[in-house]
Amino acid sequence: MAETATPTTGQKLTAELIGTFILVFGVIGAAIFSSANTGLLGVAFALGLAVLIGAYAFGPISGGHFNPAVTLGLAVAGRFAWREVLGYIIAQIVGGILASVVLLGVLSMGKNFDILVFRSVSTGYDELSPGGFGIGSFFIVEIVATAVFLFVIMGVTSPGRAAGNFAPLAIGLTLAVLVLVAGMVSNGSFNPARSIATAIFGGPEALSQLWASIVAPIVGGILGALIYKVVFDRPAKLTA
Amino acid sequence: MAETATPTTGQKLTAELIGTFILVFGVIGAAIFSSANTGLLGVAFALGLAVLIGAYAFGPISGGHFNPAVTLGLAVAGRFAWREVLGYIIAQIVGGILASVVLLGVLSMGKNFDILVFRSVSTGYDELSPGGFGIGSFFIVEIVATAVFLFVIMGVTSPGRAAGNFAPLAIGLTLAVLVLVAGMVSNGSFNPARSIATAIFGGPEALSQLWASIVAPIVGGILGALIYKVVFDRPAKLTA
Amino acid sequence: MAETATPTTGQKLTAELIGTFILVFGVIGAAIFSSANTGLLGVAFALGLAVLIGAYAFGPISGGHFNPAVTLGLAVAGRFAWREVLGYIIAQIVGGILASVVLLGVLSMGKNFDILVFRSVSTGYDELSPGGFGIGSFFIVEIVATAVFLFVIMGVTSPGRAAGNFAPLAIGLTLAVLVLVAGMVSNGSFNPARSIATAIFGGPEALSQLWASIVAPIVGGILGALIYKVVFDRPAKLTA
Amino acid sequence: MAETATPTTGQKLTAELIGTFILVFGVIGAAIFSSANTGLLGVAFALGLAVLIGAYAFGPISGGHFNPAVTLGLAVAGRFAWREVLGYIIAQIVGGILASVVLLGVLSMGKNFDILVFRSVSTGYDELSPGGFGIGSFFIVEIVATAVFLFVIMGVTSPGRAAGNFAPLAIGLTLAVLVLVAGMVSNGSFNPARSIATAIFGGPEALSQLWASIVAPIVGGILGALIYKVVFDRPAKLTA
Repeated sequence: MAETATPTTGQKLTAELIGTFILVFGVIGAAIFSSANTGLLGVAFALGLAVLIGAYAFGPISGGHFNPAVTLGLAVAGRFAWREVLGYIIAQIVGGILASVVLLGVLSMGKNFDILVFRSVSTGYDELSPGGFGIGSFFIVEIVATAVFLFVIMGVTSPGRAAGNFAPLAIGLTLAVLVLVAGMVSNGSFNPARSIATAIFGGPEALSQLWASIVAPIVGGILGALIYKVVFDRPAKLTA
Repeated sequence: MAETATPTTGQKLTAELIGTFILVFGVIGAAIFSSANTGLLGVAFALGLAVLIGAYAFGPISGGHFNPAVTLGLAVAGRFAWREVLGYIIAQIVGGILASVVLLGVLSMGKNFDILVFRSVSTGYDELSPGGFGIGSFFIVEIVATAVFLFVIMGVTSPGRAAGNFAPLAIGLTLAVLVLVAGMVSNGSFNPARSIATAIFGGPEALSQLWASIVAPIVGGILGALIYKVVFDRPAKLTA
Repeated sequence: MAETATPTTGQKLTAELIGTFILVFGVIGAAIFSSANTGLLGVAFALGLAVLIGAYAFGPISGGHFNPAVTLGLAVAGRFAWREVLGYIIAQIVGGILASVVLLGVLSMGKNFDILVFRSVSTGYDELSPGGFGIGSFFIVEIVATAVFLFVIMGVTSPGRAAGNFAPLAIGLTLAVLVLVAGMVSNGSFNPARSIATAIFGGPEALSQLWASIVAPIVGGILGALIYKVVFDRPAKLTA
Repeated sequence: MAETATPTTGQKLTAELIGTFILVFGVIGAAIFSSANTGLLGVAFALGLAVLIGAYAFGPISGGHFNPAVTLGLAVAGRFAWREVLGYIIAQIVGGILASVVLLGVLSMGKNFDILVFRSVSTGYDELSPGGFGIGSFFIVEIVATAVFLFVIMGVTSPGRAAGNFAPLAIGLTLAVLVLVAGMVSNGSFNPARSIATAIFGGPEALSQLWASIVAPIVGGILGALIYKVVFDRPAKLTA
């Protein structure tokens, strides 16, 4: 009977939790274990494809946000109900942290275990920026990138212009592009849940900079969603 | 008349055999011949794309499992008939071994032939782990990764929420992500048939650790399928 | 009511502006910040995927050109209204320059800031060619590559033979292929708006060669569109 | 009126010519200009994506073969008319050679021009094999890989089980996988037209081994098509 059932709140929150788990398991797992081998391209595809697959698998249940900046942006744009926002964000944060705990478990049984590997995959500026970029660069990149992310999400899920089942493809691959742009600057967050998941094991610097990885993507996400709504969701020339 | 014909058992088993042949030919061929050139990213795409293409070509015939952990997970979740399980698993194992035999044939006519190259692509822990990870890391990664794989499979083929013809895309690309996470830990199995195919030519260590590459993906696959079923296949709020 | 609305001119131009912004932000951002890490493959995917996502998000509004050579080619082939051409081209150029300004802002707050990095991502020949190719090689590659681009665009959007929602996928990935061919020769423009966006900060040589990156893609785009139209849009054998 | 028109023979042959031009321009262009930078992964994606885009753009006109082994395999399997085979193969060979001529033109105006670069991208065994593999390895890899290619083509275009518009995606990406397997052994042909296009400028060794790159893919293609037809196109259990 699942065919005709509206997802329950519990199902939606579990979908967001598992989807964000897959996101962090994918991108941080790739960053920790494989980026020495694959470089940034492996990290970019890991994030892009993790969100792509999560959105195909869980999008029909929860909408496939996996990211507080997306949830808030869509709520501000009137595409998502405010009363569901808090639950979604908590589920996303929990899912991300669970993935970090699993990765920590894998790491802790490897040789030469050093929890500071989580510092190297934490998002931030100055000494946390792979390219040594400062807080100004960090905020520009994270705000613009997350705004671009919301442009794409709003566009491909726009009523009447929808990309249909191509939406998860476009949404996921957007993140691959954005990592290639922002990876060396900010380590590529665009997602407070992903940044929280690594900062909690990332040491004092990662924690002290965490606010920036929460504020910047949310500002960017809201900006992108609002710009799209104002420009493209106007009634425009009615033809019917 | 094939348009209106239900596949015979022989057609299904041949589809599973050929699909698993393509999987092992693709990923182990890439690992043996090209990974020195392409790194882990080439192996990740080889596996992901091999399953993607196999699922598009043979999915309409057999369902496109190519993996005993998938077959068992789907059976446990009530999505696949138990009476077909044994035949599928045998076909998968035979297809994988055939691919290894072909690759061995290619290798044996190259210069500096050394069968121990199969050891380097066998899945395992300790000295078989590319990153030197132990059995605990191995089990965590293989169980969680295969559970994630089944989450995606169950989700994209879920009645009423199906991703339609995007399912093979999402399923294949999931494996690309998982190799980027697990490759350095376990060599990335998630599939007993793939592990058997390399272990049989991988020498005593590979054979002695093979049980783990059979048990862990099956446990993970069943766990993932059951969690999905319990959480998302409940009747939920009926709306019709 | 957006479902039934024809986009306004303002919406179309904003879509082209944002789409070209995403294109330049993606490919030049990747080239500046990540290509030392990812090589040309990262740049190729950044461009290909940036156009893919832009076309899914904004294609239903503006057609998703993001490129004066595309706009002119489609106009010459009768697939786009001449009266809209100038507005589109201006929007594309503005969007591209805005992206360069943002990237310049990020760079300027990094350590060791050197605006000459824009020279290295400018398109051109001789000393601007990554592989040291001359103007003849430049013109052949840019003309043929942009013609191939228009072949694909014309083909996948051809009435009665349309690839439907696969068109943005094919169009974007064409650019990934073309960067792999032309990147070392010309730095891979195929797009005057992209070349203008980098030349304005690229120093005197980049500016003095800019004419070539405007002429060659436009010639190639028109040639490709015309050849397609003459060969494949003929009435042919009418069957209905 | 193109919507309702059956393509003329001239349109079909031009489609095959241009499609094979794009294939060789993409993969050999990437191999010549970028593989020192991107490794085999760039070549694999260049071939896979070149065929993907060609098949989306020209598949509705000619079927999108771009490869004599595909044309012959489909003819043997009864999926393509024998009277069209010769024209298709000639168009494919001409398109491939034209692409080589264009690439030669680009190269000849670069510094340090050496036509022997075409030798390094010619397919073959022994001293032409990147990994130093002999003729036995060459034949196994080329026959099996081309058979796999035809399995996928036959499967995704099979009446009643068709992958629809996903067929070009699956077909193109199959070649990416096959390059990752066969690239170091044979330089990855699976296509006599692609091998002819490089051998004619590849010097005496490339020419003297060309027969093998014609025979092996054709044998593999016919084998794959026949196996698929015999196993999967049987009437089977009729259900309607």
